[in-house]
Amino acid sequence: MAKAVLTPRAVDFPRWYQDVIAKAELAENGPARGSMVIRPTGYALWERIQRELDDRIKAAGAENAYFPLLIPESYLRREAEHVEGFSPELAVVTIGGGKQLEEPLVVRPTSETVFGESMARWIESYRDLPLLLNQWSNVVRWELRPRLFLRTTEFLWQEGHTAHASEADARAYARRILHDVYEDVLVNVLAIPVVLGRKTVRERFAGATSTSTLEAMMGDGKALQMGTSHELGQNFARAFGIDYLDASGRRELAWTTSWGITTRLIGGLVMAHGDDLGLRVPPRLAPVQAVVLVVKDGDGVAAAAGELTAALRQAGVRARLDDRVEVPFGRRAIDAELKGYPVRIEVGPRDVADGRAVLVRRVTGQKTPVPLDGVVRLVTAALEADQKTLYEEALARQLVRTTEVASIAEAIEASADGWARLPWDVVGSDGEAELNAHGITVRCLVRAGGGVPGADDEPGLVAVVGRAY
Amino acid sequence: MAKAVLTPRAVDFPRWYQDVIAKAELAENGPARGSMVIRPTGYALWERIQRELDDRIKAAGAENAYFPLLIPESYLRREAEHVEGFSPELAVVTIGGGKQLEEPLVVRPTSETVFGESMARWIESYRDLPLLLNQWSNVVRWELRPRLFLRTTEFLWQEGHTAHASEADARAYARRILHDVYEDVLVNVLAIPVVLGRKTVRERFAGATSTSTLEAMMGDGKALQMGTSHELGQNFARAFGIDYLDASGRRELAWTTSWGITTRLIGGLVMAHGDDLGLRVPPRLAPVQAVVLVVKDGDGVAAAAGELTAALRQAGVRARLDDRVEVPFGRRAIDAELKGYPVRIEVGPRDVADGRAVLVRRVTGQKTPVPLDGVVRLVTAALEADQKTLYEEALARQLVRTTEVASIAEAIEASADGWARLPWDVVGSDGEAELNAHGITVRCLVRAGGGVPGADDEPGLVAVVGRAY
Repeated sequence: MAKAVLTPRAVDFPRWYQDVIAKAELAENGPARGSMVIRPTGYALWERIQRELDDRIKAAGAENAYFPLLIPESYLRREAEHVEGFSPELAVVTIGGGKQLEEPLVVRPTSETVFGESMARWIESYRDLPLLLNQWSNVVRWELRPRLFLRTTEFLWQEGHTAHASEADARAYARRILHDVYEDVLVNVLAIPVVLGRKTVRERFAGATSTSTLEAMMGDGKALQMGTSHELGQNFARAFGIDYLDASGRRELAWTTSWGITTRLIGGLVMAHGDDLGLRVPPRLAPVQAVVLVVKDGDGVAAAAGELTAALRQAGVRARLDDRVEVPFGRRAIDAELKGYPVRIEVGPRDVADGRAVLVRRVTGQKTPVPLDGVVRLVTAALEADQKTLYEEALARQLVRTTEVASIAEAIEASADGWARLPWDVVGSDGEAELNAHGITVRCLVRAGGGVPGADDEPGLVAVVGRAY
Repeated sequence: MAKAVLTPRAVDFPRWYQDVIAKAELAENGPARGSMVIRPTGYALWERIQRELDDRIKAAGAENAYFPLLIPESYLRREAEHVEGFSPELAVVTIGGGKQLEEPLVVRPTSETVFGESMARWIESYRDLPLLLNQWSNVVRWELRPRLFLRTTEFLWQEGHTAHASEADARAYARRILHDVYEDVLVNVLAIPVVLGRKTVRERFAGATSTSTLEAMMGDGKALQMGTSHELGQNFARAFGIDYLDASGRRELAWTTSWGITTRLIGGLVMAHGDDLGLRVPPRLAPVQAVVLVVKDGDGVAAAAGELTAALRQAGVRARLDDRVEVPFGRRAIDAELKGYPVRIEVGPRDVADGRAVLVRRVTGQKTPVPLDGVVRLVTAALEADQKTLYEEALARQLVRTTEVASIAEAIEASADGWARLPWDVVGSDGEAELNAHGITVRCLVRAGGGVPGADDEPGLVAVVGRAY
């Protein structure tokens, strides 16, 4: 089965990535520079990610809303650091309804400012707090070096924005999203181990007082930032007038947070789990967990395949029947492999005559003949086991390719192949600039024993550094 | 309870509509002209509508994908009628990443053209047909007379685009969407009766050979187009080169369809079911079907309310607990009424002492004390009955306010208060122009005995005419 459909990862990882995206039919370039068409196979992954995140976001008490795509330019200027951070990336509408606009409209690079403006109107007293909002939408940030899913001019995301009566409450909520929503989905659904930490001042979001991040190691040892959760202090509240009357009737500024995860996660999924045969989708995420492949027509084959599919669905497995016998079997099997369906069940005339099917597991590559009446049980067990295997493989890579070092020079060397950990005292702002000059960034700061620091200047912090997407 | 929170419908229907949208916290104007902020209460309705439509779209075999927001201007020019239809409504990006763009990018008014371009690449042979795609997204059409939900510069929608090997297959699929997806959701979930028919040449979608529509009568007798399903013949296939090799190896042009439903449906929901106290949400659609209101604190009240909420959820009811006793009870009750929650259950100290609660039904206005252990059963029955009542009320209005007439003059008179039906032979293209001059449109053509005509020139067609949003 292992035809050279894809460039092997060891030969050229970026090329392999492009090959997988194309051959697994996840996405392709759109007509305008940096734009992307997400094909059904890729979009189904996003829908599953959305559903898993959205359920948890709602469980954390936030409600979804929708804010406008086009924002008056003046809005962005209200928060100084914010406009500075986004200005070079903006797409600007200057013509509307056939006429030159008096004030140009920016295509939202984020909705921070419109949320801020609305929150200011919606919040009157402490009874309206916390105000917990989320939005699923597209945003546009002009991209000079586009790469499908990882850096595209338009991408899809969710952005949460909340307002709280106290700094402590804002911090607790930003952390709740970080752990109960993002970490939970990444680890338990996407099977991707993550290091949670605090961004340095240089790396943090424009206007934030603290940015927490989830960093994952890709198959080539590079880092990908999977999501961020920001405390914005009172910066946005001040800029937009988000204040409230407290119980004693005093007017106070609110404390706000924001947090987001984007379609780049799909790129991370490919690079964390993919192998030389294509994508490997973790079973709990997979839109198609099991595909029942009719090898070719024959006595009772269609019936047996149909019954298997129904039995799998009955057992709660997301199963698809592929009975397109007019398409060569080999091509369909390779396609299933490229798309990374966790399990495929091959049913042909000889199989049915023998009362069995062939079970092929994508993660382990194992190929076993199984009796027809044992398929459901074995598939269920395989899905459970392979979810675990994917996580363990990714975690082993992260641990093996992370080196404890003591100097900037050693960190640069270790970053050729993975991540380095070293005391933040040894790095500091100057060391960070030196690393940057070598194409290396401080991915985050963590406590020596693990855990997300509460401040930039906590003693004994460890810097996790590496190359990144 | 009936304070004059809203302008009564009989006094000023458009004003009443604006009041409901504002007071029920469904939406408000965004900062840029014609833009809209959809607030959580409004967006929750959209999420429910999306879910109901999406399940049925998937059951009809279509897959979701995502196409870019920004489209090169040249794309729109490929289909002559298409560009003519959309040119006056476009928002155009001329600056990207701080530079003037060589070719301006249009913010999609629809994705017809990018779908077309991709489909042309994805389809090779008859084996790839039908290709059934759908997209959930935002689109922008410059709006000079904006009205929340009904006409906004940006709106949310789904747009389906499919390609087929034959005209008959394309037609059957466009009809399947019309009936199995749109009509089913409108009638059985939104409880809105609809007249299904064919648009006249003048009213149909730019580039379509046939447009089927679902028209609903609002509370003031005007029509609202709730959704459309188009046959595009081979027009788009020709413009974008969507062709395929048939079984005998001959190259053939495909037949395409497109179909869409937008956030204007929320406006339709308000105007079809709302009354002078606010919105009335059909139980099957309602994000919150039952709200349990703690009247005020007292012995066992919190426990009883919590148990009721849990028991309702257990029984599959989407229930919400409102125990914000710091907010006056009257204000919360009016809020529940404005937002149109189908049922509210009031629990206070005296109720709990008597082992009962008060059940208030939004649709009938009925207010009954019920024993605590009977609440779940009664709520379930009320939800079922009130779904039916809403549909019947709306259907009765449509029937009573539709008049059979025989002349244009009579049609104009009848349209002051509702719809008129008259022979299409009597109207014709000249009569249509005359009606238009009076602000009246032909909503659709139907067969005399009901049913959607297959052609413009079928004999014996009936025109349904009226004023419309």
